[in-house]
Amino acid sequence: MATPVSPLAPPSRPELRPIEGVRLATAAAGIRYAGRTDVMLALFAPGTTVAGVFTRSRCPSAPVEWCRERIKAGHAAALVVNSGNANAFTGKNGRAATRLTAALAAKASGCRPDEVFLASTGVIGEPLDANRFAGVMERLVADAEPADWLNPARSIMTTDTFPKLATATARLGRHEVTINGFAKGAGMIAPDMGTMLAFVFTDAAIAAPALQALLREGVADTFNAVTIDGDTSTSDTLLAFATGAAAHRGAPRIARAGDPRLKGFRAAFVRVLADLAEQVARDGEGARKLVEIIVEGAVSKPSARRIALSIANSPLVKTAIAGEDANWGRVVMAVGKAGEPADRDRLSIWFGGIRVAHRGERDPSYDEAQVSAVMKRPEISLKVAIGLGKGRDRVLTCDLTKEYVAINGDYRS
Amino acid sequence: MATPVSPLAPPSRPELRPIEGVRLATAAAGIRYAGRTDVMLALFAPGTTVAGVFTRSRCPSAPVEWCRERIKAGHAAALVVNSGNANAFTGKNGRAATRLTAALAAKASGCRPDEVFLASTGVIGEPLDANRFAGVMERLVADAEPADWLNPARSIMTTDTFPKLATATARLGRHEVTINGFAKGAGMIAPDMGTMLAFVFTDAAIAAPALQALLREGVADTFNAVTIDGDTSTSDTLLAFATGAAAHRGAPRIARAGDPRLKGFRAAFVRVLADLAEQVARDGEGARKLVEIIVEGAVSKPSARRIALSIANSPLVKTAIAGEDANWGRVVMAVGKAGEPADRDRLSIWFGGIRVAHRGERDPSYDEAQVSAVMKRPEISLKVAIGLGKGRDRVLTCDLTKEYVAINGDYRS
Repeated sequence: MATPVSPLAPPSRPELRPIEGVRLATAAAGIRYAGRTDVMLALFAPGTTVAGVFTRSRCPSAPVEWCRERIKAGHAAALVVNSGNANAFTGKNGRAATRLTAALAAKASGCRPDEVFLASTGVIGEPLDANRFAGVMERLVADAEPADWLNPARSIMTTDTFPKLATATARLGRHEVTINGFAKGAGMIAPDMGTMLAFVFTDAAIAAPALQALLREGVADTFNAVTIDGDTSTSDTLLAFATGAAAHRGAPRIARAGDPRLKGFRAAFVRVLADLAEQVARDGEGARKLVEIIVEGAVSKPSARRIALSIANSPLVKTAIAGEDANWGRVVMAVGKAGEPADRDRLSIWFGGIRVAHRGERDPSYDEAQVSAVMKRPEISLKVAIGLGKGRDRVLTCDLTKEYVAINGDYRS
Repeated sequence: MATPVSPLAPPSRPELRPIEGVRLATAAAGIRYAGRTDVMLALFAPGTTVAGVFTRSRCPSAPVEWCRERIKAGHAAALVVNSGNANAFTGKNGRAATRLTAALAAKASGCRPDEVFLASTGVIGEPLDANRFAGVMERLVADAEPADWLNPARSIMTTDTFPKLATATARLGRHEVTINGFAKGAGMIAPDMGTMLAFVFTDAAIAAPALQALLREGVADTFNAVTIDGDTSTSDTLLAFATGAAAHRGAPRIARAGDPRLKGFRAAFVRVLADLAEQVARDGEGARKLVEIIVEGAVSKPSARRIALSIANSPLVKTAIAGEDANWGRVVMAVGKAGEPADRDRLSIWFGGIRVAHRGERDPSYDEAQVSAVMKRPEISLKVAIGLGKGRDRVLTCDLTKEYVAINGDYRS
């Protein structure tokens, strides 16, 4: 795609080392895009465990339903992800397409279809012709190799302007384990694109229920604290795979999420999730500014989260930030509409560390020129003190620009 | 303002006849705008009753708090509305400004301050200098006359591109009564503007509790069923005044909202509210299309309302409509995120009467050219059948255009 790379893209890309027990490959199946890869396969060593979290949409895509049914068994042999078609709102045909894709991958790789996990991203409501994967799967299995992380990250892109990769290492017992991940954003659903997908891989040996618990706690302040436009995809999928290969080198096998030996791993795992989630926000459709919203002094953390999301999803706050306007009046509005306890006369608001409103009124001491300078930066922190309790939370979002409207308002041809 | 009139403005403006017991006047107090009126006064005959509904924001403006405290008494002698400054988030100064404005109006017109109702619209967080009204009130009282409805409607405009007026007559007993109203939109809060305000007047004699009940039931499917961007103003105010003058001509005095003689009046009253609410949607900031969203087959009417609002407030649905794209995939997404009972495989979706999706899949029979023609129209009806029950509801909204971003992202200078 000819879209220029987001000005908020990280300046450098991390180097991802191989993870024992994971092999990857990509191919061009010609689903929708010309001249680029659009399908990736990951193959996992026997004994790989899997955990997942999915969209809360009441109208999920066929691959989301497929994964939800199979995640309980807790083990995975393969992952197939395609871009160009989300296989969402495709009814019986959609379910048939997931079955066929899994069957083709299973046959090519020698596993059972129930051990194949699936994700699709792209246009919704169009039938996905899974027959296109027929010859492709054998090639993918033949090509799969441990070192290639960048091409899979590229193959799942839709409106993304850059591939999103993250990595971290941690000590597990006396052994080093690796966590790699890649993701795609960026708006939630778009005509030729759509959906947040993320995949995380480790060579640690972690039982599926423990991995699920780690994932669930890990997303709370990372992927669940990022919003682009408040819209919810039919396809959002985050899967974590643990091959256990590190156990062959002597690393402990972890059965419970509460195991104290997980301390370092847990922190590294959350770091990878946070890194990927932030990259999704940095690549929000049309985004020119990364916006951190901190709410403190709410009656509870969930209350702070709801207020922060109300601010983050307000079109008026987002357009003001696009216009480099420290319009705290709109922030008050968004606090007021959140439905959470708030007292106008206790509110204080900061842009980039400069207090612009204090206890229900404009802060008489703030310097307009200073605030203007802050608003010109590509990264803006907005803090609201509610003044009622100790609840604090943080979400990430981006501004709402004319480019967002252009990207999402262009005719689906 | 130089903004061109919305392409969705009604082709003609209704003629509003005088209402006995109401006199109006406007003036230029120089609050913010140059070369235009920015304050209006309405004076009411003794015995006028009043009812009101207000923003649900937890951070309401000072005039909203002023009105809420005084509406219970149920009678009104005057109404003062200014544009250019919303007197919101102005703390103690804001409360002082409301007191001073009411005192000035009361002194000039010979009533008590508690009988003066107030509304302000415009920039928020800036102190309102009510001293500017000092000389103005006497002039307004001297100028007030029954026939001028257009100028008051104009004086309260902010980002509105046309004045919004509506009128209806009804039989009350054997006597004709009149209902006049005017309103302003258009986005919820904007840098130089903001807020939905509406005022309705009648010569019918209706006790305050009955008028309040009529207003509360009247807004449910009119003003509460219109959304521009999902943002909620700190200042939204709808006041209804009943002078009772028709009783002097022999019309009955109505004590209860359940009085069967109200049948015709109730319908006319709702018609005026619906007309004004639709005009607000037609003047949504940057709007190019008026969008009616009908949800049927939900489990209940409130469930249908929540689904309809989820669709109406979805940036992705609104940008698709701006792009004249019948993107029903995004409608599915918005249904899915509403959190209400819905089954993807029962959903059907129509644009302009053409069914594009049926029972969870693209309708194979629809004609793309026909749908394209529908999407080019300035008024678009979007219907979703949930297929679970009998709940039906309707909301009005508009599209999300680059002009919306421009209007709301321009620097507040």
